[in-house]
Amino acid sequence: MTLALPRRASAEFAGTALLVTAVVGSGIAATRLSPSDVGLQLLENAIATALALGALILIFGPVSGAHLNPMVSAVDWWLGRRAGTGLTGRDLVTYAVAQVGGAITGAVLAHLMFGLPAATWSRTVRGGSHLLLAEVVATAGLVVLVFALARSGRTAAAPAAVGAWIGAAYWFTSSTSFANPAVTVGRAVTDTFAGIAPASVPGFLAAQLAGGVLAVAALALWYPHAADTAGDVVVPHLTRETEAR
Amino acid sequence: MTLALPRRASAEFAGTALLVTAVVGSGIAATRLSPSDVGLQLLENAIATALALGALILIFGPVSGAHLNPMVSAVDWWLGRRAGTGLTGRDLVTYAVAQVGGAITGAVLAHLMFGLPAATWSRTVRGGSHLLLAEVVATAGLVVLVFALARSGRTAAAPAAVGAWIGAAYWFTSSTSFANPAVTVGRAVTDTFAGIAPASVPGFLAAQLAGGVLAVAALALWYPHAADTAGDVVVPHLTRETEAR
Amino acid sequence: MTLALPRRASAEFAGTALLVTAVVGSGIAATRLSPSDVGLQLLENAIATALALGALILIFGPVSGAHLNPMVSAVDWWLGRRAGTGLTGRDLVTYAVAQVGGAITGAVLAHLMFGLPAATWSRTVRGGSHLLLAEVVATAGLVVLVFALARSGRTAAAPAAVGAWIGAAYWFTSSTSFANPAVTVGRAVTDTFAGIAPASVPGFLAAQLAGGVLAVAALALWYPHAADTAGDVVVPHLTRETEAR
Amino acid sequence: MTLALPRRASAEFAGTALLVTAVVGSGIAATRLSPSDVGLQLLENAIATALALGALILIFGPVSGAHLNPMVSAVDWWLGRRAGTGLTGRDLVTYAVAQVGGAITGAVLAHLMFGLPAATWSRTVRGGSHLLLAEVVATAGLVVLVFALARSGRTAAAPAAVGAWIGAAYWFTSSTSFANPAVTVGRAVTDTFAGIAPASVPGFLAAQLAGGVLAVAALALWYPHAADTAGDVVVPHLTRETEAR
Repeated sequence: MTLALPRRASAEFAGTALLVTAVVGSGIAATRLSPSDVGLQLLENAIATALALGALILIFGPVSGAHLNPMVSAVDWWLGRRAGTGLTGRDLVTYAVAQVGGAITGAVLAHLMFGLPAATWSRTVRGGSHLLLAEVVATAGLVVLVFALARSGRTAAAPAAVGAWIGAAYWFTSSTSFANPAVTVGRAVTDTFAGIAPASVPGFLAAQLAGGVLAVAALALWYPHAADTAGDVVVPHLTRETEAR
Repeated sequence: MTLALPRRASAEFAGTALLVTAVVGSGIAATRLSPSDVGLQLLENAIATALALGALILIFGPVSGAHLNPMVSAVDWWLGRRAGTGLTGRDLVTYAVAQVGGAITGAVLAHLMFGLPAATWSRTVRGGSHLLLAEVVATAGLVVLVFALARSGRTAAAPAAVGAWIGAAYWFTSSTSFANPAVTVGRAVTDTFAGIAPASVPGFLAAQLAGGVLAVAALALWYPHAADTAGDVVVPHLTRETEAR
Repeated sequence: MTLALPRRASAEFAGTALLVTAVVGSGIAATRLSPSDVGLQLLENAIATALALGALILIFGPVSGAHLNPMVSAVDWWLGRRAGTGLTGRDLVTYAVAQVGGAITGAVLAHLMFGLPAATWSRTVRGGSHLLLAEVVATAGLVVLVFALARSGRTAAAPAAVGAWIGAAYWFTSSTSFANPAVTVGRAVTDTFAGIAPASVPGFLAAQLAGGVLAVAALALWYPHAADTAGDVVVPHLTRETEAR
Repeated sequence: MTLALPRRASAEFAGTALLVTAVVGSGIAATRLSPSDVGLQLLENAIATALALGALILIFGPVSGAHLNPMVSAVDWWLGRRAGTGLTGRDLVTYAVAQVGGAITGAVLAHLMFGLPAATWSRTVRGGSHLLLAEVVATAGLVVLVFALARSGRTAAAPAAVGAWIGAAYWFTSSTSFANPAVTVGRAVTDTFAGIAPASVPGFLAAQLAGGVLAVAALALWYPHAADTAGDVVVPHLTRETEAR
């Protein structure tokens, strides 16, 4: 039996918060410290994000699975709904709320750490069909990766692998790879390097949803038994039985 | 019994496509964002490539082995042809076609993500005997690495190791280490940072073939039993029997 | 039975010394070699620190646990005091003295390697409530990470994970993540990139203590059985019985 | 029974050659591509070296142990001489000759790949007691690391750990961490970024020897049973019995 939902949700909240803190905070530091080269700023931002993401999955994985991403949670629910291996519908809603709330909180925490007002709407417009295509690719790759690792019993590699994928996709996608609806919302309340204008958010969310759907199709082709191990995504979590051991 | 060939080929297609997307896309981003230092551009390109390559091997390895490289597939066929451990001749041809098709598709995908025309012939001439020597070294090292890991039962390290080798060889070889015939062809259709003029492609392919031959010789010296484990390159893949477990 | 305390203390001394040598030394090299971009300096400093920290935990872990940090040792004592799994009170005092002494020695060693006077008080004022908030976050995350890994039997990942967390937190916290009382004291005697003015030290120590308390609360929520494995933090160490095997 | 000495020696030759090729080649690329910031050059050089070193230990480890360093081989012989676990005296001489020959060959290979004359004496004077102190620290840390990992059964981490130590020590030691007598000699024949003037070589070799002696003393304190596992340094190698399995 899984751990109590509030406890898992608190892990999703805190993990997503710290992820956004890492993304936003390192972006602020990068623009302040490397003012003359945007590429160097993105390199600093990407390295910090990849390393933090790996550490956060290690911290929160055994508690909640460390989805930290509503699209991962949604696919987990979708794939596992028949076999009863993944999130329940109630779990999914709770996870998503916790993740979005965490993401906004994380942006605020980054602001407070850097002496900025708690939140400011971003004015960075991000759009155009090519950026949306990039979000589809980044999200699909991320979702396929975590379910492929679970299906093949290699979740020990998940923390590093997820960090690596996102760190790389910051560079090879034109959108700098948000790939996460909660993080996208959280990045709307920061008018700094990592921000996204609220008007650009719906397009990104739609593209990420399309990426999730594409991932489900890809998994059906490459990992048709992925549903069996939906419970091990991103990493296997403790149950009430195993926790006390 | 191995998984059906079309399914494995689709994995090689998609994996090689995303590899070239990562190489080309990060190169485009690097030149746009760090216009004043070519070294910084290459550093950004190398880090993104190394991380993406590791993640892609994790995704596609259990399906097709994640060769993503006709020279790896060719050596796999060559070494395993007597023991029946590696690709069959038919597998090899199919893999190579899928990899080359994927590579071209990946370049197109990168272009579309960055708002460029789907494809443009590269005008970057890359040649001279010293660059070809570099390709021999880069390819030989890569092939020896993956077969050495399989022979010694350490394929769990292959995703990171292959990424590390390529990421390093971007720097220590004068050719920036293409080391992959399919990727070389795919990079001919992009007139961006990672491109290679079509006229330079044959020389690179010949050098990579020489690197593959050199690798076979080196393996005979250092890993004479490499043929026994050709089926585990780059990482062991599922069979029809193991998939459903 | 644990290894003799003087031997463990010598490992904590040397490990913390080399950690501070890495932090301070790479900071000196970075400012000398990259004089025109502070961000690039911090990137060089962060990468060197993360890699050195991982290697040092591997070296000293089996001897003393490789705490290298009085806040980690203090939480280890606190959590394990009832179950008898962690440091004893006497261990804690000895560890902390060794760590602080090592940290100062490490700064001196860095100075000597770079041809500077043995020690100079730092004049870099670091303060303000937002920087102290950053230290709370950085320290709490570090402590939760190492106890979470021990609780879930994944200490093999601890060297890389601790390096990753600190390397990332250099960027996403405004304080550049000291997160370690001993290292903070050691960095007070170097008037170079990594230095902290003595007057700023007490605030940082208080924030780190708050981070430790916050970590204990977080562990109670997410890893209530963390006390059981306090003896395996940061990595399991040898005992008199296992050493000779 | 160990593999035949000529075969192991050929692995040490090739591995050390490629290591120096990586060090020298990436240095040449870095100075050509990032002409305006020496720190950025060193960062590129350090990342390439760390990644290549990890991959090379993976390739050559099972054949010869992948010492790639006469100081590692010498300590291996010294510690294991009574228990018969490490190199024999004849092994040591052969390894050292192969490593030095490989190192020079590797510098030549780098030159040829970059279109330079095969070899040119370096004019980069590196000296002063602070640089020699740095070599002592860098070498001692490296040697302790590899024997600590072998003693504690964690040689699977050695490739990444050795790369991490050297990559970090490029930055935190003023000498940029040669830490290897063979590599030092090989770097004397290249008048490029990584070069060292022949007149500076003896001082570096003496300092590295002192580092090796210091490491032996440190191991006696922290890992008194290190001699038992000298045969597993840097990673366990195949024997005539295990190879055919």
